[in-house]
Amino acid sequence: MASSRTNYPHHLLLNFSLSSYLIFSSLCYCISVSDSKSDSFITIDSLRGSLEDQENFIVYSLIERARYPYNYPAYDPSYLGLKNYSLVEAFVRDTEAIEAKFGRYQNPEELPFFPDYKAFPLVPPFKFSQILYPPASSINVSRTIWDMYFNKLLPLIAIEGDDGNYQQSAASDLICLQALSKRIHYGRFVAEVKFRDAPSDYLSAIHAKDSETLTRLVTSKTVEETVIERVKKKAEVFGQNVTLREASKDGNETKYKVDPSVVSNLYGEWVIPLTKQVEVNYLLHRLD
Amino acid sequence: MASSRTNYPHHLLLNFSLSSYLIFSSLCYCISVSDSKSDSFITIDSLRGSLEDQENFIVYSLIERARYPYNYPAYDPSYLGLKNYSLVEAFVRDTEAIEAKFGRYQNPEELPFFPDYKAFPLVPPFKFSQILYPPASSINVSRTIWDMYFNKLLPLIAIEGDDGNYQQSAASDLICLQALSKRIHYGRFVAEVKFRDAPSDYLSAIHAKDSETLTRLVTSKTVEETVIERVKKKAEVFGQNVTLREASKDGNETKYKVDPSVVSNLYGEWVIPLTKQVEVNYLLHRLD
Repeated sequence: MASSRTNYPHHLLLNFSLSSYLIFSSLCYCISVSDSKSDSFITIDSLRGSLEDQENFIVYSLIERARYPYNYPAYDPSYLGLKNYSLVEAFVRDTEAIEAKFGRYQNPEELPFFPDYKAFPLVPPFKFSQILYPPASSINVSRTIWDMYFNKLLPLIAIEGDDGNYQQSAASDLICLQALSKRIHYGRFVAEVKFRDAPSDYLSAIHAKDSETLTRLVTSKTVEETVIERVKKKAEVFGQNVTLREASKDGNETKYKVDPSVVSNLYGEWVIPLTKQVEVNYLLHRLD
Repeated sequence: MASSRTNYPHHLLLNFSLSSYLIFSSLCYCISVSDSKSDSFITIDSLRGSLEDQENFIVYSLIERARYPYNYPAYDPSYLGLKNYSLVEAFVRDTEAIEAKFGRYQNPEELPFFPDYKAFPLVPPFKFSQILYPPASSINVSRTIWDMYFNKLLPLIAIEGDDGNYQQSAASDLICLQALSKRIHYGRFVAEVKFRDAPSDYLSAIHAKDSETLTRLVTSKTVEETVIERVKKKAEVFGQNVTLREASKDGNETKYKVDPSVVSNLYGEWVIPLTKQVEVNYLLHRLD
């Protein structure tokens, strides 16, 4: 059954305007887009394809977290009596140390929330392609994502209650956080490709450190509206109660595992603005 | 938006035939079904409701694993040079030790694949209700699930290839394994409730250690066929490519993230038979 699926190359050459680009670098970067499903050159459209795939995993992960109640003790800094770390923070720190040991953060698409682990990777280095411009690549908004998730989003998706499954809730939280972080920090790759496609569009705003103009340049209202509408539809499709009976047409409101409007608001108020913030901050350092 | 959701009690009294049950135990056990969505007494039907919810997470987790290629080095015992552990086994062992430290395995619904970790839970004990009959509760088929997953299932859902994301693949593997293990080992709870509902149905077969009769007693072909059909539909619904366009009616075959027939075969050939094996083995020790 797997035979119908083809083996895609995972390191794809970038399609960029070489003549413009050569004034900034003599290196031909390649791009790593692990879940790209295209074997054509990477463009803004193919990056958007990957972002579209990532939407699915964000929606699944929110639905998975919603099966546990809020589980307050996991977020109470006094619960474990550990240097004021909550259970979830202690769990994420320990888990990221293991992930680092097994090589997760060798992939430039992955950013830890607590990068101060000391674990040395057990795995041999893998040649992930490096597309990002090094002085700009360290831009990150992990702290903002962390605070947004725990203070704004989680209370909207988890019902009140305590079922004792604190580790399971924390593990689900981490999966949501990582899916959101990867999606939002993809703004670095998007900004790099936009810049390479037309560097002259950005030069004066970068030199002037003009964030407002850069934000305008990276904004496409039509694309944003499509994304928000699509992610809401995904929450409806993936969060529906699937039975073998035909859906009833009696006008009763369908129940979803996670309210689709919470997911579209998450995108409209947080994911898209934070991605643009990453893009703009990246571009501000693109000529450092 | 969360206000429309209610706070369900998570420890629900079992509805059982007390007069029959008293011959075996004077204790009134309670049942812990963390993701039960019913506040009525626990019955076979409400356990089936939980199993139905777990189907969703199994399907999501398989789709999530399918976004990475097979990544052979993660499964090669010689890759890390660690006591013949593959990367995935070393990762699962380390991860389960952390999960144990944060209390995961205090919940009798959760079984580790490598229970020989020495981590002492950091978390205070939580009063998970204990429904299982202690001499029978340790029944497990984790090794069979592990072998089935890596030898049979994974090659059907992951395309060939190597993108270097070994830790990410291993983490996705563990999520699939845990979802399958929880589902299959729910057979212990199902067997306990069936036994309590009508102990006299099982007594002679248990005394005679007659696995064949017990298998017949716990089998319902109609239920099994419904489950297999429903899980296939879930793979179609959750694994479809959601766009804002209407689905085309041009007769082209829809592409799913994971082949729905792989998921229905997984249930028909492994999940349901292994669940019944757990039920039968549990019942064989129900009078120990």
